[in-house]
Amino acid sequence: MAIKLYDLAGAEDDRRFSPYCWRVKMALMHKGLAFETLPWRFTEKDAIAFANSTTVPVLVDGNHTVSDSWKIAAYLEQAYPSRPAVFGGSDSQALTYFFSHWAVRTLHPPLMRAIVLDLYGHVHEKDKAYFRESRTKRYGMPLEQYGADPGKGVADFRAALEPLRPVLAENDFLSGKGPGFADYILLGVFQWARCASPRQLLEPGDPLYAWRGRVLELWGGYARKAKGYPV
Amino acid sequence: MAIKLYDLAGAEDDRRFSPYCWRVKMALMHKGLAFETLPWRFTEKDAIAFANSTTVPVLVDGNHTVSDSWKIAAYLEQAYPSRPAVFGGSDSQALTYFFSHWAVRTLHPPLMRAIVLDLYGHVHEKDKAYFRESRTKRYGMPLEQYGADPGKGVADFRAALEPLRPVLAENDFLSGKGPGFADYILLGVFQWARCASPRQLLEPGDPLYAWRGRVLELWGGYARKAKGYPV
Repeated sequence: MAIKLYDLAGAEDDRRFSPYCWRVKMALMHKGLAFETLPWRFTEKDAIAFANSTTVPVLVDGNHTVSDSWKIAAYLEQAYPSRPAVFGGSDSQALTYFFSHWAVRTLHPPLMRAIVLDLYGHVHEKDKAYFRESRTKRYGMPLEQYGADPGKGVADFRAALEPLRPVLAENDFLSGKGPGFADYILLGVFQWARCASPRQLLEPGDPLYAWRGRVLELWGGYARKAKGYPV
Repeated sequence: MAIKLYDLAGAEDDRRFSPYCWRVKMALMHKGLAFETLPWRFTEKDAIAFANSTTVPVLVDGNHTVSDSWKIAAYLEQAYPSRPAVFGGSDSQALTYFFSHWAVRTLHPPLMRAIVLDLYGHVHEKDKAYFRESRTKRYGMPLEQYGADPGKGVADFRAALEPLRPVLAENDFLSGKGPGFADYILLGVFQWARCASPRQLLEPGDPLYAWRGRVLELWGGYARKAKGYPV
């Protein structure tokens, strides 16, 4: 029985922009595991109540149900030890956990300011009120005010990426010679934007631009083929 | 012939506060390599000109001379592959390189505001003019102005540490089960402060407090025994 993944979708079933779901899809591809994704909307809380979760990703693998992208990655690594590792070992797993916390705290806020109105435009009609209310509460201001200066959001996002540039100038991937979960965390950030927003985030000369191209090409261009805007 | 390390010293020969030199000393201890440190002052550029460097650490290992803490760690890992690894592998090495850039960009500036005047108090008499001039130029203001609100520097430093806390609440070390170079990078930041400043940076309930205690205790308390202020 193939693994099932509840995956956030927008107005169209195949528009999938959750950064956390992207991490998991890339980890499943990395491990070469068969899986199917089930489109899910923010307000479909009942559909994932069995997982004791109100958010996706939720992964169902036979008798195992796991929610939270970090826990899912750790589960897959433990459950499928003979498949390619998404963490190089316990050293990398702890450092990648730091990377995840850094990315969410440092990269998400400026990027959200750049794309929040585009995201709102792409969420399903049934989710629009939920998205508006929950995000207004989270950011303490109306969406239109939070996203009033997307150009500044992009500039702040680019500045926040700064410590990654020397690493990607010298390494093909954040995980060194091959891609790993840290790369998928970062790709999730870019897919979040690209699947919902036409905004260009990187200049071609940026080491991150070449890195993103490499990750988008993995497994026959799996991530590049996703419905979204060109990069 | 034992490895020689040029190590920044203050007014006293045994007051060693360079965060970059601390990384290297910890890596040498980790690998169990015999080494001696040579006290060096900021203005003794001639003494390390043979290494084509104007700053320490500079490591001399037989015919090999290496400067720059990152290059030294990479050199030691490559030159002594049978000794305990400071990187868990190429995955960890790339992620640790990111960690290094993050630490220098994010942790050093607020901490410098907290301790710059204490550092100035401890640099060797012959270095004082150099330290004052070079740092005034770097920060674009007099030392007394840059360090005018050390309490705010400590508060900003504690806030900047935030993405580390969930990692150290769940792992003994940044490198997972055992310490690695990421831990030594972070310890270097704390030793920079502790060897020159009485300021308390962490509260006992902070996961970082317990982590620092663990790293200070390694190899019979090597780092804790260094001349400095109690933590």
